[in-house]
Amino acid sequence: MNSKRVAQETAKVLQDYLTYQAVRTILDQLSETNPTQAIWLRQFSQQHSLQDSESYLNALMVERKDLVMRIMTVREDLAERVLEFLPEMVRSGIDQSNLHYRCQILERLTQTPSENIENSNPDETDSSE
Amino acid sequence: MNSKRVAQETAKVLQDYLTYQAVRTILDQLSETNPTQAIWLRQFSQQHSLQDSESYLNALMVERKDLVMRIMTVREDLAERVLEFLPEMVRSGIDQSNLHYRCQILERLTQTPSENIENSNPDETDSSE
Repeated sequence: MNSKRVAQETAKVLQDYLTYQAVRTILDQLSETNPTQAIWLRQFSQQHSLQDSESYLNALMVERKDLVMRIMTVREDLAERVLEFLPEMVRSGIDQSNLHYRCQILERLTQTPSENIENSNPDETDSSE
Repeated sequence: MNSKRVAQETAKVLQDYLTYQAVRTILDQLSETNPTQAIWLRQFSQQHSLQDSESYLNALMVERKDLVMRIMTVREDLAERVLEFLPEMVRSGIDQSNLHYRCQILERLTQTPSENIENSNPDETDSSE
């Protein structure tokens, strides 16, 4: 398993996602303080995908450097606020989710002996599952 | 700015993404050890989006519990290997990217005085930007 590649790709996804969250935050702010700019940025964001934040920012650089500056500031700030908590949150999310599926698998294994030993107990031989 | 909401949503995205990377890893392994299963899992993954890893796993539970078990093990392992490095990687990725745009903005500000003071220097009045 290539952990280094996975780490690099995951970091890139995370950077793109925090940029998306920064744009979303700015859209919220603008829709209260400057609705016209909010509409403009919303339209721009529909035309330029935030899946790749670097292409998005490069395109925005041509039209509105001030908004690029604002997005940079906000994503820096968001990174500062949330990054340190993520490893623990994700680890515990995965643990909880895995526990949920393991319990389901255990339950099904213990509740449907009919799958393994056919007709061993005629009262419970329903073929569901 | 609602940092708690952003942290929760980002953790969810990260959990989904690590599940996707786990499936990708398993597909690579299966295509060497068990091509038929690899084809089956690839088709299943085309029919069920990994954007929401929980729906994906729930659907897979109905068909192949063994593969759910395998995905759980691999994503747990991936989380263990990469999560701790992510905050620093993303912070430094954002810093580098921001530096790049700030330099560009500075360069343009200093290289195109013609925008602000028209014809102040006739030798340099090209209107490129």
